[in-house]
Amino acid sequence: MSVTSREVHLIERPQGLPKPEQFAIEEVSVPDAGDGEVLVQNLYMSVDPAMRPRLSGQYALNKAMDGGAIGRVVQSRHPDFKEGDVVQNGQGFREYFISEGRGLSKIDPDGMPLTTYMHVLGGTGLTAYGGLLVTGQLKDGENVFVSAAAGAVGSVAAQIAKIKDCYVIGSAGSKEKCDWLTDELGIDVAINYKESVLHKNLKAAATNGIDVYFENVGGAHLDAALPRMNPLGRIPVCGMISAYNNRGSISEPVTMLSNIIYSRVMLRGFVVYEFNDLRPQFLDDMKRWIREGRMKYRETVLDGIERAPEALIGLFTGMNTGKMMVRLAEE
Amino acid sequence: MSVTSREVHLIERPQGLPKPEQFAIEEVSVPDAGDGEVLVQNLYMSVDPAMRPRLSGQYALNKAMDGGAIGRVVQSRHPDFKEGDVVQNGQGFREYFISEGRGLSKIDPDGMPLTTYMHVLGGTGLTAYGGLLVTGQLKDGENVFVSAAAGAVGSVAAQIAKIKDCYVIGSAGSKEKCDWLTDELGIDVAINYKESVLHKNLKAAATNGIDVYFENVGGAHLDAALPRMNPLGRIPVCGMISAYNNRGSISEPVTMLSNIIYSRVMLRGFVVYEFNDLRPQFLDDMKRWIREGRMKYRETVLDGIERAPEALIGLFTGMNTGKMMVRLAEE
Repeated sequence: MSVTSREVHLIERPQGLPKPEQFAIEEVSVPDAGDGEVLVQNLYMSVDPAMRPRLSGQYALNKAMDGGAIGRVVQSRHPDFKEGDVVQNGQGFREYFISEGRGLSKIDPDGMPLTTYMHVLGGTGLTAYGGLLVTGQLKDGENVFVSAAAGAVGSVAAQIAKIKDCYVIGSAGSKEKCDWLTDELGIDVAINYKESVLHKNLKAAATNGIDVYFENVGGAHLDAALPRMNPLGRIPVCGMISAYNNRGSISEPVTMLSNIIYSRVMLRGFVVYEFNDLRPQFLDDMKRWIREGRMKYRETVLDGIERAPEALIGLFTGMNTGKMMVRLAEE
Repeated sequence: MSVTSREVHLIERPQGLPKPEQFAIEEVSVPDAGDGEVLVQNLYMSVDPAMRPRLSGQYALNKAMDGGAIGRVVQSRHPDFKEGDVVQNGQGFREYFISEGRGLSKIDPDGMPLTTYMHVLGGTGLTAYGGLLVTGQLKDGENVFVSAAAGAVGSVAAQIAKIKDCYVIGSAGSKEKCDWLTDELGIDVAINYKESVLHKNLKAAATNGIDVYFENVGGAHLDAALPRMNPLGRIPVCGMISAYNNRGSISEPVTMLSNIIYSRVMLRGFVVYEFNDLRPQFLDDMKRWIREGRMKYRETVLDGIERAPEALIGLFTGMNTGKMMVRLAEE
């Protein structure tokens, strides 16, 4: 027996914004699980801004791409897994796969929707949690600016800062997103950077300066924040989405960096795997906050693996509100 | 009795490179030391790149400027000081001043030339020492890049890195400076950034990447270093001299910052007073290194307070080799 699985291949490296025709959906045949193996059917897969630079080099051409996913074990000849187990895995961009168990971690949903393990309870949430609390060394009651605050990571970071009694300013690219930030998430000030002069609005909003700038954008956002940073301020650099579609990851120019000298400000890039040890504490905190209604989220779910390229490209065109993902099969 | 003292006033705020006519030399009368006071005659005063931004705001117009200086007590009615004491002070840009002792610290020359306490054994040296070892967390044997490596701070940083068995690349703006770096200071590779394409030369020289970039320049220097930074690399930001003469401290544009994300690189601005506690250890190390011939320095000394504006401006036109200072009186 075997199953037919569709998978997404990169067939041409994009320059600038990726195009749908640079991807192909291929059918492959996946065999039964052999001894010590499981057959997994993916239910959901993630698309992330950080995949964009990988399209320029790390992803092989004419092979299945990969990324975060959640699947269900449909056949097991492995002692640690049984049929029906829900497993987080790194084998996105395909419907089925065989595994010897490496890279699979079982999820106990614990009453939470499965999809939350793809964002607020997954790497996205841990990115915000670790970036803000570890890299950003956030202290209760500080003044915080989050760019792309309506995005998957940004919205978690902004809410954690509110939970920590901080004054929180967020930027977003539409009135609808700004309204969501202030009205639903309780962020203090939301700035629509497309409809206003960001650095003027940020200066007006940051009456007590900025202690922590959670950086997702780079370029003009960073330049707006730098002169506002308080002494010993921290800028955890999660992403610079303004740079991802440019050749060589060239960002919008930044010209205000000398502001970090006298204020002794730190910028530091970080990657989610630095925070793996924090995961149990992170899950405890986040599940509690979700249950208490203090951690909200939105999801944009496209149906069918054939829409994965559209979902990935849509990250850079403002298609999503909250976490963007693709549903590959019904739960 | 009283003495006539000349002092340097800022009379017009410069835009861009300061001009001599924006300064004036004024004569004032300084009285005798009163009870609990000392009268100090300055022997040497420092000019520093960091004074440039102060010209745009912090220095009052039509008053004596200030800055690091070394003087001799010529009259004392203060129990802690006696005539002949050599005192480091912050009252540069004037020949004589009265003090109640605050901000004066006695120097025991310990066999070193007095002028060294203005640079390698003073704030300049401590800036390099603390920036490299504390902010930069330098470890023995790492790969180091120092910009403006023939400058006052840069040359100390580059030599400390060599003493710590590091592979050291330095940039400088002339063949003569580059020759000094390699032939006299033993730096591994010196790049003349005015005569070559910096980022190509840096890439070629940094065969094992860069662990610590000691940043004095900003702009194109930073952009050249960012893609070369090794994982967990550190960029202690001492200065961005490329920005100091621009309105609002706008630097040359930096476009490669997104490189810090995946490599988890840190940039941090620092100021010398953060390292005050290190001073005894710093003096022990530096005096030993000077005596052992492992810490070399050059000085550019202009004679007479009337040349102080020329000295300050000369910092930005490449007039100095090594520490620039002004001699106000004979020892």
